[in-house]
Amino acid sequence: MITLQDIQDAYVRIKDAIIKTPVMTSSTINRMIDGQAFFKCENFQRVGAFKFRGAFNTVSQLTPEERAKGVIAHSSGNHAQALALAASMLGIHATIVMPENSPNVKVQATREYGATIVFCKNTVESRVSVANDLIEKHGFTLIHPYNNPRIIAGAGTATIELLNEVGTLDYVLAPVGGGGLISGTAIAAKGLSPMTKVIAVEPANADDAYRSYKAGRIFPSVNPNTIADGLRTQLGDLTFEIIRKLVDDIVLVTEEEIVQAMKLLWERMKLVVEPSGAVSLAGLLKMKSKVKIKRVGVIISGGNIDLTDFFNNLI
Amino acid sequence: MITLQDIQDAYVRIKDAIIKTPVMTSSTINRMIDGQAFFKCENFQRVGAFKFRGAFNTVSQLTPEERAKGVIAHSSGNHAQALALAASMLGIHATIVMPENSPNVKVQATREYGATIVFCKNTVESRVSVANDLIEKHGFTLIHPYNNPRIIAGAGTATIELLNEVGTLDYVLAPVGGGGLISGTAIAAKGLSPMTKVIAVEPANADDAYRSYKAGRIFPSVNPNTIADGLRTQLGDLTFEIIRKLVDDIVLVTEEEIVQAMKLLWERMKLVVEPSGAVSLAGLLKMKSKVKIKRVGVIISGGNIDLTDFFNNLI
Repeated sequence: MITLQDIQDAYVRIKDAIIKTPVMTSSTINRMIDGQAFFKCENFQRVGAFKFRGAFNTVSQLTPEERAKGVIAHSSGNHAQALALAASMLGIHATIVMPENSPNVKVQATREYGATIVFCKNTVESRVSVANDLIEKHGFTLIHPYNNPRIIAGAGTATIELLNEVGTLDYVLAPVGGGGLISGTAIAAKGLSPMTKVIAVEPANADDAYRSYKAGRIFPSVNPNTIADGLRTQLGDLTFEIIRKLVDDIVLVTEEEIVQAMKLLWERMKLVVEPSGAVSLAGLLKMKSKVKIKRVGVIISGGNIDLTDFFNNLI
Repeated sequence: MITLQDIQDAYVRIKDAIIKTPVMTSSTINRMIDGQAFFKCENFQRVGAFKFRGAFNTVSQLTPEERAKGVIAHSSGNHAQALALAASMLGIHATIVMPENSPNVKVQATREYGATIVFCKNTVESRVSVANDLIEKHGFTLIHPYNNPRIIAGAGTATIELLNEVGTLDYVLAPVGGGGLISGTAIAAKGLSPMTKVIAVEPANADDAYRSYKAGRIFPSVNPNTIADGLRTQLGDLTFEIIRKLVDDIVLVTEEEIVQAMKLLWERMKLVVEPSGAVSLAGLLKMKSKVKIKRVGVIISGGNIDLTDFFNNLI
């Protein structure tokens, strides 16, 4: 089991590499919920998402042999860019397997961070088999985006910073997709402040974590149809175990609620947040009656959204 | 003449009312300029702009008689909302004269902050005459948006916070419209750090401050055709005098450069910034060769931009 100590150790390891992201507040949102919300803005993190914390924590613990051979991931999202940057900062070679139909802007960004891109077909099978071939050939270390203790410990460091800055909280909210962020958040929050309730927020259109949590076994994520592209993945065995043990509830939000949350962050807080990042605010507004006069931490997970997508979703 | 002491006194007066806005950095932008830029993010200030600092500083110094009668401004922009909020926080009545064709969202926001809106025709003459009638009838105190020592001192407090946080700077950049922000910035910067160069940035399509600065007399702003709507005003006698004495140069930027700067702030820094607020970054990129290996403060003045306008300008 991952402990608070693991997260504190991760924090020492990554402290000088990450951005200590600001905690923001909004009097408008505080009025809306009749409570106090503290937004941990990981959209300001390196590569625009919390993922950098776990990636750097993981890559910095590789053995000399693993470092020499390099790392690999199959992802077209924030994990790919986070791993590419963390590896390049530590002088390690990174290979990213991406579907051939990935948006050019993501390919470019990952390349700019110094990674080698290898394209595959747009299926899970192709991604896995292309990655496995490369691992066999070059001895790369595969870095899983969330079902990995070091990734989870890295993700938890955001909550250490949040609690250090604002003190005790009644609730902490974070989005759940694969479960890396909410797992790290829960371990850090319960470790530092056992009375704090930890709430995962998930799009109703990708509610596999909710169903898994309620049923006590992992459901796959089948055809998730949500704009929160970072939350379409399913839980891993590691994250599922932590969530079952430490998360107090999972709240579901609609697509419309996600869009309204993005809009509120944009208009009132002047923050560019990706749909997955706005999900936790959507959850906060949904559970309004429970958080009355409470102090609530809200993890904003990332801000990587294409201008055109953003506009098409919001207007 | 306004002094550093006036700004320090203003800071004591407003400290508990304002948001101490974060200073942000971007490794992408630092790489672009081969220097270090520190962004003072007044888009996160109350009402979304630095204007709140000066408004609160001014309203909090009114005499009991003035407080009892209330304040007035003619504006449809950030000054109106800043004055409305500052007055309401201090229990003072505010009246805002707005052109009848003002965007509904601005009217609503100003009303939400507790002000009474009085509409006028869409001409300067109508605004002035409607305001004067109300002043005569009710004894309101007119709060000018920039040509006012208390407004200028309030605006300067952002630079006190910036320098306190990041230490000595080689340059400080701020946009210039009516000149309130750049005046306060210059007094604070030169007072705290005489070697710091103070640069005003202005849209080339509204270059009245530039021409006034070069010629040594105030030119009116005639048909300014810039998306930076906050910078269409002309200098006042007070701001002109300070700018002549303390500003080291005025840099002009094109509309395209302003749009590119907004886009960069959006995509790379995840910041929602209005065109006037992005002007100082446009200036920074324009004077790239001069700021090499320098430390530069960049004042981001505000973030109030309608979603649709934003998209239409950027895509």
